[in-house]
Amino acid sequence: MDQTTESPAAQPPSERTRLKRYHWLGDYEKNTINSIIDSALVCQVGYVIDGAPYVTPTNHWRIDDYVYWHGSSASRMLKAQSKGIPVCFTVTHLDGIVFARAAFNHNVNFRSVMAFGNAEFVEEEDKRRSLEAFTDRVAQGLWQHARQPTEKEWKATRIIRMRLDEASAKLRSGPPIDDEDDYKLDCWAGVIPLKVVALPPESDPNLREGIEAPKFIRDFFLWGEG
Amino acid sequence: MDQTTESPAAQPPSERTRLKRYHWLGDYEKNTINSIIDSALVCQVGYVIDGAPYVTPTNHWRIDDYVYWHGSSASRMLKAQSKGIPVCFTVTHLDGIVFARAAFNHNVNFRSVMAFGNAEFVEEEDKRRSLEAFTDRVAQGLWQHARQPTEKEWKATRIIRMRLDEASAKLRSGPPIDDEDDYKLDCWAGVIPLKVVALPPESDPNLREGIEAPKFIRDFFLWGEG
Repeated sequence: MDQTTESPAAQPPSERTRLKRYHWLGDYEKNTINSIIDSALVCQVGYVIDGAPYVTPTNHWRIDDYVYWHGSSASRMLKAQSKGIPVCFTVTHLDGIVFARAAFNHNVNFRSVMAFGNAEFVEEEDKRRSLEAFTDRVAQGLWQHARQPTEKEWKATRIIRMRLDEASAKLRSGPPIDDEDDYKLDCWAGVIPLKVVALPPESDPNLREGIEAPKFIRDFFLWGEG
Repeated sequence: MDQTTESPAAQPPSERTRLKRYHWLGDYEKNTINSIIDSALVCQVGYVIDGAPYVTPTNHWRIDDYVYWHGSSASRMLKAQSKGIPVCFTVTHLDGIVFARAAFNHNVNFRSVMAFGNAEFVEEEDKRRSLEAFTDRVAQGLWQHARQPTEKEWKATRIIRMRLDEASAKLRSGPPIDDEDDYKLDCWAGVIPLKVVALPPESDPNLREGIEAPKFIRDFFLWGEG
């Protein structure tokens, strides 16, 4: 991975993003954070309404230093966020199960990002650019593939964004770490890697005859694979 | 799936778990909720500290009507939750990408659970039973496989639980739903299913020679598969 030491996110930008424990897992490097965000299609957005915590899973994408997510204008999450409320944006990849020689040292391999910021609505004039980026990130060419939104559909689409100012990554990879004495135990230890795979495309049963899947569907691959 | 109409979760148990939109996706049936929780190894727990939202990914498990998660005694999340603070517990499975004939109708197939409750510490006397349930849920026989925790390790292990009183599930599956007029478009539509798979086990490079992976590792399968 490209190490950019002058990256603005190379140091924890605030007290709450500095990892209090497992600081040896901390990686504040901007490219790492971006790569974890970009290789996930689902994020979890936390926010507060009347003092109570809410977490909403949704689809996200990133343009430069902003993460974006969207949904219907009518959803509870977006109503609350239209006021520019503070949110906690998180992405998690589960990469494996780590079996140790001691129950206490079982673990998981993972990559996660936690980012704090203020959610804001994307203005009308920027909605098209940002949704185009979203669909083309899912599959290059997808935006042009489908019918463009009508005026009514645009009105029903609200897009939220948040600047990645306070972000940190946390990662674990590799074999188990056991206590020194435990390595002599007669106990298997290792990792079962987990991976998200894309299965072959399934055409809509209502698809008209003679319509072939486009190249970007036939060649579909998951971001961050390999 | 077993439909139990008298299930306590068969109706939305509170206003905030009733889905405000997409109510046609709502499924308040207890078995559905449990199955979504049980087939995930990672959850996201949302909570509030000093009015600000936090979301922490962690591993969870379920015993009857409680979800459990754990971590070090020192973590920020557990410190905040030791006071019995309100949390929002969520689990999300991404099952596929849904390509429609109209950009507005692109979607994802997913299964998610949102549950509200008060987090509480699990008492010392119940810690063993609950951790045993956790490891055996990951792989049957895992608890007995590894060295049992020492007194010091037990002390460093805090387990949190929350009763599933206010829980709801939200699901989408199947092909895209397009506007009637769009079905005549010369545009491919369908689904790319996504799936989490377990790859073959990788032994710890520091494993002593002659130690074979146990049956529960060789036969490992992901919960909720198939």
